[in-house]
Amino acid sequence: MVKLLGRSTWLFEQPPVILSSAAVGGKMEKDGPLGEWFDYTEEDGLFGESSWEKGENRMQQLALKAALQKAGLRKSDLNLLFAGDLLNQCTGSSYALREFMVPYLGLYGACSTMAESLLMAAVYTGAGLAKAAGAVTSSHFCTAERQYRFPLEYGCQRPPTAQWTATSAGAVIVGEHSMGGEHRIEIVHACAGIIQDPGIKDANNMGAAMAPAAACLFRRYFRESATAPADYDRIFTGDLGAVGSDLLYQLLGRDHIEISDRHNDCGLLLYDRQRQDVHAGGSGCGCSAGVLNGYILPQMRAGKLKNVLFAATGALLSPTMVQQGETIPGIAHLVHLRAMEGGGADVY
Amino acid sequence: MVKLLGRSTWLFEQPPVILSSAAVGGKMEKDGPLGEWFDYTEEDGLFGESSWEKGENRMQQLALKAALQKAGLRKSDLNLLFAGDLLNQCTGSSYALREFMVPYLGLYGACSTMAESLLMAAVYTGAGLAKAAGAVTSSHFCTAERQYRFPLEYGCQRPPTAQWTATSAGAVIVGEHSMGGEHRIEIVHACAGIIQDPGIKDANNMGAAMAPAAACLFRRYFRESATAPADYDRIFTGDLGAVGSDLLYQLLGRDHIEISDRHNDCGLLLYDRQRQDVHAGGSGCGCSAGVLNGYILPQMRAGKLKNVLFAATGALLSPTMVQQGETIPGIAHLVHLRAMEGGGADVY
Repeated sequence: MVKLLGRSTWLFEQPPVILSSAAVGGKMEKDGPLGEWFDYTEEDGLFGESSWEKGENRMQQLALKAALQKAGLRKSDLNLLFAGDLLNQCTGSSYALREFMVPYLGLYGACSTMAESLLMAAVYTGAGLAKAAGAVTSSHFCTAERQYRFPLEYGCQRPPTAQWTATSAGAVIVGEHSMGGEHRIEIVHACAGIIQDPGIKDANNMGAAMAPAAACLFRRYFRESATAPADYDRIFTGDLGAVGSDLLYQLLGRDHIEISDRHNDCGLLLYDRQRQDVHAGGSGCGCSAGVLNGYILPQMRAGKLKNVLFAATGALLSPTMVQQGETIPGIAHLVHLRAMEGGGADVY
Repeated sequence: MVKLLGRSTWLFEQPPVILSSAAVGGKMEKDGPLGEWFDYTEEDGLFGESSWEKGENRMQQLALKAALQKAGLRKSDLNLLFAGDLLNQCTGSSYALREFMVPYLGLYGACSTMAESLLMAAVYTGAGLAKAAGAVTSSHFCTAERQYRFPLEYGCQRPPTAQWTATSAGAVIVGEHSMGGEHRIEIVHACAGIIQDPGIKDANNMGAAMAPAAACLFRRYFRESATAPADYDRIFTGDLGAVGSDLLYQLLGRDHIEISDRHNDCGLLLYDRQRQDVHAGGSGCGCSAGVLNGYILPQMRAGKLKNVLFAATGALLSPTMVQQGETIPGIAHLVHLRAMEGGGADVY
């Protein structure tokens, strides 16, 4: 049912389908170019809770509940949840999703988690191990900044290469092939990436740390799937930002792979960089989650995009390792999404 | 190729096989009852590195290299690595495994990671998505204690319910069905668990926090697989320790499920509790990893155990959430291992 191509690319012979998706965002995300596409936004960074961490939990709950509602499913209809986030011990996910009582397989892929969890949900539904599975992730500017860098109150100046961690959560429900309607969005291929460490030590330059992992992933994926950039209407990366996107073009250019005419980066789409002062762009698990659910999938449903590569990137650093003088490894995973004729899915 | 039973139990119709496994341990683990079974032990907690965190990386590298060597495989033969650990952002795994250049899907299951990663490796090889995949995890007393509780130098007194985080790493290589010899160990079933939160707030009583997740898992697994405790020679839990094991018997007893005559807990096997003063037993991802590779699989290879349930448990807490007054959610996942006639595998 699933065919292994090369080392870690999979072709889904009975492609699983995206049953629904939802995005939740904060004030910055609401004020950004995609603000109106979010299912729920909130001015209050606490999302009505007593701490930012609990607010992040709340975002994931809101996203998953909205996605379940759109799909017309109850939580008991889900065989599995795949989730992860940036918080220490991934508590953004485990504390949020415990109340759903769904079998839970926790992931850690840093900002690549939206792609990793979607890949997992596709694999399990595509191989007959689940009828329906959820992929959930989040990030929160205030929880991430104080954990990774400095207390917010410190007011640290950010260099031009820095990215803005998105306050956003996304949830996607994936169902087995037979659950898809006429106008479904299918997951056709997936590819698991290899960690690449280009030797970057600056935790304020994640784009550079992640670009080689994305380049490695695309090179391998195009070879293993026997496809080329021209086979896709659009190619999205997770959160390389301005610095990482430029590096990606340079790295792929060495192998004569040209994607810049159809590439965009979630970190460059979520915010208005100039007006919102986010420096090199957005980042965080919630960045690619918000853009997938607040831009890419809606565009596909509207019939504007048919074949899309969604490749989220992650920087696998921790403050402890950076403080010990270590470099920052990067990772990236991708899924190939295809909108079937006509666009406009029955459920979304 | 893989059959879904109930909600999240899988029957592998062409069961994947364990090609090899290896365990690495520290001084306490060497001095414990299973010390001689470890592939590599080291008196120096730094494992020759400049920090405990880098020492933990080194343990994972040693374990995976040993497992690859035993299986007669090169790292390029692996389609995938599934790995995770307790360190913030799972750097015990990502920093250790970056040099192997194998497609990497990061997990977070706290101390359940050996079961979660083995489940994943079984699913991907059992469903034809990989020919060979590795499952790797670790924990380190010194990295975990200072991250979760207090600086070691503080010399904090430990209550009787406390468990001792194992300094250990384990690696298992799983291959597709056709790779198994006559005396292979197969993975027959797997089951993904549901998060259970019994309301425990004491980070020094993880056994109580995890026991309900294990009880929920066993209840569901026996029902979904249509098996009973009597179908297994031995049932192992990850690291419930003395407190959690007793609670597990009580919880299962309510449903008239009796496992105590064939149950043992990795946290009670790894150390001599009295002599080594580990209070309620061992814990950490490395605890079940060390016992799986240093006791369970060798016993199966020697023909002493045929049908085994291996259920590792995890407490999904973070210091941040506990400091915010939150309770500790638990999780558990399991695999059913079966040694084929005669024991004594060709590769191990």
